[in-house]
Amino acid sequence: MNVYADNAATTKMSRRAIEAMLPYLDEVYGNPSSLYSAGQRAAEALAEARSRIAARLGCQPAEITFTSGGSEADNQAIRSAAKLGERKGRKHIISTNFEHHAVLHTLDALKLEGFEVTLLEVSDKGLVTPEQVEAAIRPDTCLVTIMYANNEIGTIQPIAEIGAVCRKAGVPFHTDAVQAAGHLPINVAEEQIDLLSLSAHKFHGPKGVGVLYARKGIPLVNLVYGGAQERGRRAGTENVAGIMAMAEALDDACEHMEQNRTHLLALRDRLIAGLEQIPHCQLNGDREHRLPGNVSFCFEGIEGESLLLMLDDRGISASSGSACTSGSLDPSHVLLAIGRPHEVAHGSLRLSLSEETTAQEVDYLIASVAQVVDELRAMSPVYRDLEAGKRNYIL
Amino acid sequence: MNVYADNAATTKMSRRAIEAMLPYLDEVYGNPSSLYSAGQRAAEALAEARSRIAARLGCQPAEITFTSGGSEADNQAIRSAAKLGERKGRKHIISTNFEHHAVLHTLDALKLEGFEVTLLEVSDKGLVTPEQVEAAIRPDTCLVTIMYANNEIGTIQPIAEIGAVCRKAGVPFHTDAVQAAGHLPINVAEEQIDLLSLSAHKFHGPKGVGVLYARKGIPLVNLVYGGAQERGRRAGTENVAGIMAMAEALDDACEHMEQNRTHLLALRDRLIAGLEQIPHCQLNGDREHRLPGNVSFCFEGIEGESLLLMLDDRGISASSGSACTSGSLDPSHVLLAIGRPHEVAHGSLRLSLSEETTAQEVDYLIASVAQVVDELRAMSPVYRDLEAGKRNYIL
Repeated sequence: MNVYADNAATTKMSRRAIEAMLPYLDEVYGNPSSLYSAGQRAAEALAEARSRIAARLGCQPAEITFTSGGSEADNQAIRSAAKLGERKGRKHIISTNFEHHAVLHTLDALKLEGFEVTLLEVSDKGLVTPEQVEAAIRPDTCLVTIMYANNEIGTIQPIAEIGAVCRKAGVPFHTDAVQAAGHLPINVAEEQIDLLSLSAHKFHGPKGVGVLYARKGIPLVNLVYGGAQERGRRAGTENVAGIMAMAEALDDACEHMEQNRTHLLALRDRLIAGLEQIPHCQLNGDREHRLPGNVSFCFEGIEGESLLLMLDDRGISASSGSACTSGSLDPSHVLLAIGRPHEVAHGSLRLSLSEETTAQEVDYLIASVAQVVDELRAMSPVYRDLEAGKRNYIL
Repeated sequence: MNVYADNAATTKMSRRAIEAMLPYLDEVYGNPSSLYSAGQRAAEALAEARSRIAARLGCQPAEITFTSGGSEADNQAIRSAAKLGERKGRKHIISTNFEHHAVLHTLDALKLEGFEVTLLEVSDKGLVTPEQVEAAIRPDTCLVTIMYANNEIGTIQPIAEIGAVCRKAGVPFHTDAVQAAGHLPINVAEEQIDLLSLSAHKFHGPKGVGVLYARKGIPLVNLVYGGAQERGRRAGTENVAGIMAMAEALDDACEHMEQNRTHLLALRDRLIAGLEQIPHCQLNGDREHRLPGNVSFCFEGIEGESLLLMLDDRGISASSGSACTSGSLDPSHVLLAIGRPHEVAHGSLRLSLSEETTAQEVDYLIASVAQVVDELRAMSPVYRDLEAGKRNYIL
């Protein structure tokens, strides 16, 4: 059996999204900046996609900028708020210690330019509170950037409450909603979000295309200078086909959100319950406030990489954390942020489900993980030490 | 008859490129950063695309960075060389006055950061000389950036000679090869090019994907921070499907380059000869050193925009200059750079052909342009003044 259980890393494009893309490859292929009809048809498609996406987020079409993906959107959002702040003499930014690297590394770059960054510590459940944000805001704070839902452990932050705190303090609020968009109901107006990033390939759209929402009145600085596309905020011929596919995928996801949620919650909780039968393991992140498709565990006494490779042998695609850092030997900063010790953080497993996942697949995941964990522990000197009482279990 | 004659703005994706893309949308859709087989198959595809593109450019695979397009590649190339120069106390950049805005606007941004920019003036034929470059190089020059072929008038610069001048002087040389790649033979080693940008949608690949070649030893600075993709030089999940389509489109273009060139040269020269029969017009740019598919004219006494709209009524997609600036009322900076007066630059027309263009279509273009120019001149008070001798013809 082949089970793709890494939908937080990327998703299979849906048939609907592919069908929406195809006509823009070799039929309506004009440049949307061109005056003639073939270009104007492409421009109309772009405008339609922009309106549809704006409607799904609860904003105006003019507040949508198309980007090459979530990372670019995160970078542009944070740089824009930072530059706006700098002009007002405000160079303090608040974030958390378990953001995606697209946020954390951008903040690192800004620190070299004289910005000061406060990283709020998330709880052992992987949550921050609006009170933490409120307490950290200073007169020189120019941005709060906190992810909507974590990419590794799936925890969902109290975004509307944080939005209210920021709006009251007059501080722009950005949220990296890459894991949330298409999976959770988002309304930037109601949640008082000023800047938001999303990526199409996380909800069955194509790779290489994303959105930056910026509330009217928040000027964006360019990462890419050149032509006047995207009202001068992002140069380069628009990826019309990708954008149309993204709009279709987001519509699809939003139309079926409740139905998908019900399906996923049942599977997720079945999977969690099954994996909890394995001794010396622990669920990462809050049990309630988590993405409907996210399951993340630490298993004591094993290496995540071996676990993944042995699951792969059984046809299972899973990850230990973020795909973006899978080349790294360091333990996940997210798992360290929720207080997992190094030796436990190394034994992590993320299973992220999709609408297409079945109960049968979930049962196969449970059986396979249990079996592989057993096999690995049988070979593990660390585990033998634990069993022999030479060291103590943490989990 | 419908004739798409704006291939310099964008091209129709080829069947080969589309077929190369499709499997990566919903079959091999894994994240290339993932450890499991489904991810590794995507990673192998990326590696294969990188090797194929490197082979076409005459460089090493590790010297290729995938970007979201030509504009991003231009921005990253220029910023990288500028930052490298800044660290050595060199803050002078040489370019020309008819580059694409992705170059010129990036240079404008660098000027605000204290860089000095020398814009070489191109000749009335739209050419710069290696001697001009040599004379402009100073001890503090950190970059020469000169486009391979101009996007509006199609003139091809003496890139290898400029490369030799730069290499001798120890100054990094970037070329925006967006219009040249896939149409002209390029070899970065032989031409001593240090940085090169290209964009897939200019040679029948998809929009939203491009390449930055950077010679080994030239460190790139990130425009987009985040995950470790592209060896840490460009964060964000790779657009695998788009990259595979780009590699296929470039192979296709390079395999048929001579054949396409012969076909296009015949059509181009037939089109030029036909349009030259129209009174008071002039070819823009050198007749010899120009892209095989590019035809650019100024017609005195008419407005380019009206010309385009009337051609559109006849099924013809054409442009007056760059699609990236078509929303602007200013005359083309390229036409001003080759010395066209404002009133003449407004009456410009660019027809850019593709391998699929036929002789019949070219004859239709000639007849239609002649007819539309006649009609517009009949309505034009300026033209009546010219005919009545109240003002003098320039062309």
